[in-house]
Amino acid sequence: MTTSVAGFASVTGSVGVKTGVPDVSVVHAAGPTTSAAVFTRSRFAGPSVRLSREGETDGLRAVVVVSGNANVATGARGLADARELRAWAAERAGCEPAQVLVASTGVIGVPYPIETMRERLATLPASAPVDLDAVARAIMTTDTHPKVVSRRVGGAVIVGIAKGVGMIEPNMATMLSFVYTDAEVPAAELDRVFRSVVERTYNAVSVDTDTSTSDTAAVVASGLAGPVDLAGFEAALLDVCTELVKMIASDGEGASRLIEVRVTGARDDVQAKLVGKAVVNSPLVKTAVHGADPNWGRVAMAVGKCESETDIHEENVRIAFGGLETFPTLPTPERRSELEQYLKSDSVLIEVDLGIATGAFTVYGCDLTDGYIRINADYTT
Amino acid sequence: MTTSVAGFASVTGSVGVKTGVPDVSVVHAAGPTTSAAVFTRSRFAGPSVRLSREGETDGLRAVVVVSGNANVATGARGLADARELRAWAAERAGCEPAQVLVASTGVIGVPYPIETMRERLATLPASAPVDLDAVARAIMTTDTHPKVVSRRVGGAVIVGIAKGVGMIEPNMATMLSFVYTDAEVPAAELDRVFRSVVERTYNAVSVDTDTSTSDTAAVVASGLAGPVDLAGFEAALLDVCTELVKMIASDGEGASRLIEVRVTGARDDVQAKLVGKAVVNSPLVKTAVHGADPNWGRVAMAVGKCESETDIHEENVRIAFGGLETFPTLPTPERRSELEQYLKSDSVLIEVDLGIATGAFTVYGCDLTDGYIRINADYTT
Repeated sequence: MTTSVAGFASVTGSVGVKTGVPDVSVVHAAGPTTSAAVFTRSRFAGPSVRLSREGETDGLRAVVVVSGNANVATGARGLADARELRAWAAERAGCEPAQVLVASTGVIGVPYPIETMRERLATLPASAPVDLDAVARAIMTTDTHPKVVSRRVGGAVIVGIAKGVGMIEPNMATMLSFVYTDAEVPAAELDRVFRSVVERTYNAVSVDTDTSTSDTAAVVASGLAGPVDLAGFEAALLDVCTELVKMIASDGEGASRLIEVRVTGARDDVQAKLVGKAVVNSPLVKTAVHGADPNWGRVAMAVGKCESETDIHEENVRIAFGGLETFPTLPTPERRSELEQYLKSDSVLIEVDLGIATGAFTVYGCDLTDGYIRINADYTT
Repeated sequence: MTTSVAGFASVTGSVGVKTGVPDVSVVHAAGPTTSAAVFTRSRFAGPSVRLSREGETDGLRAVVVVSGNANVATGARGLADARELRAWAAERAGCEPAQVLVASTGVIGVPYPIETMRERLATLPASAPVDLDAVARAIMTTDTHPKVVSRRVGGAVIVGIAKGVGMIEPNMATMLSFVYTDAEVPAAELDRVFRSVVERTYNAVSVDTDTSTSDTAAVVASGLAGPVDLAGFEAALLDVCTELVKMIASDGEGASRLIEVRVTGARDDVQAKLVGKAVVNSPLVKTAVHGADPNWGRVAMAVGKCESETDIHEENVRIAFGGLETFPTLPTPERRSELEQYLKSDSVLIEVDLGIATGAFTVYGCDLTDGYIRINADYTT
């Protein structure tokens, strides 16, 4: 798999936030870029998100990420530390601080070990051509594996990396995802395409309904491979981000199965997404999938709790698992065994057709297991 | 504890829905009543809720409850069965079918064993003066104990019963709560007072964010004890329903601790409730409480995810557990041990002050444990 992109360099290292594993990475561009970025809407967003939001989102020259400490709720000192990290990355990239995106993920309310960090940042080796596999490893928290996806579009390559929702120390961690490409895409188009893709991918995934203070996603294009077909680029970017989102959901805390909920026949896509999220976030649906139980009653309950949607009528709704209908045609005993077998897969598709119009949306999540409880209850801050 | 109320009779029995335990109950009034009732807003509400909603909510003469089968998503046959049950209760109470409230809780998508039920209903003993302890037992599903609370107001008594959110067979069960009183309260006042109390109690509790298809709450007043002070009545009714709600949350599936989230300093009560629900429903907060971890970072995250509330600013927010502040004044090591001790109680109070104005609201929930996963995943439909 391609893990390099023309026009980008990177360095990763260990600066004393975590013990003995890489905890910092910077990816920087050799020349001008077009770029787009989106951030958490949390009211407790930390200084990394605040600085990045205030800076440029187009023309990003560097993305610096610290893993193991979110630098959130750390007051004036946290802001000063984030500025120092940004200044370091700007110097490394040879750009303005406003052209650096800063992200940080991990424990909340604890300042960085800034003296150690300062010392070690100063002695990091020179940057080399970007190695996005190494960067994907350096941004991990409780992820069990690095997440890298690449696709080609025309003569260009798109490489996306992500870290999922996991716990560390044990405050909530964060979804971070960065996509690099050498395609040449005008800034306005890149922003439009990225927002559309984010809506269908990063905004369509949930592990536990808890929004991090630090969620950040960005795409940076060096343009070195020249222009590409825009529709092809959007399709490839959607593909990259969809794969990353599936990886995030599959690797959700304690998860044993990916859940994909495909809602069709809705009034519009917005309604389809609302219903999909109600199903994929329902603890009763999540535990049923964990128990490999084709419990369509719980899916019906979750659809039913979208009480604002007065055009949903039980008599028009169809529910299926992996193409096997369970409502209104209840499963025969034979079909039942088939369903139980299907529910044992690594990836379960739940299909809900609302029978209203042609709106559709697919959302992603994971099952709820005792592993989730163990990770999040048995570890003490 | 008083478990009887002048003007009401009851009978409980076993009609073949569950095995060997009471699964049906009817409470009926000797004469006219005033009453009020509220129902689930689920789009998959079953025929019991639909019949009850279409019938009278004032002047109820009987409440009949089946536990062990929700009679939901059972089509035309389910509607016919619900009508038959209602007709039986009307005959027993000597009233019109429209004066009967029908509630049913348990498995979804499976018809009643109506032949057995018909036979056994016909042979139930005569009704006796109401025994609300026996009725509370007969409406239980996975509740670990019956829930009955009584209070006096003037010369009258108010007795409330409830069943909590538990699983059966394992589709979601339901919150049912019925309050009987011999106070004389005009219908319009009773409706207003009950709705106000419901908003602060039944609508302020959550075990797992999943809304049942069958939730029902009602208050029925025989008036035999004569008029009472209305403010005193409302206070006593609030007290009864608050206690029932705390019992429901404490007895939530797998729960080991009651969580009470008190939000103050909000723009208004509506904002306080929104924030409180975000905190009490957060899986990360729920697992932290299960692990007896005073993890204020997760509370901050949950407050932060109320992204629509742009008047919430980190610098004005205070977070405490049981009166012990954790943010912005971070706990000293000594305070920290105190907090950890406190978090081991059966009931944990989380206090969030938003520092905006004087809006306030308290919500109730429970911790999230491996018991919840076990109940809901390891049992197969």
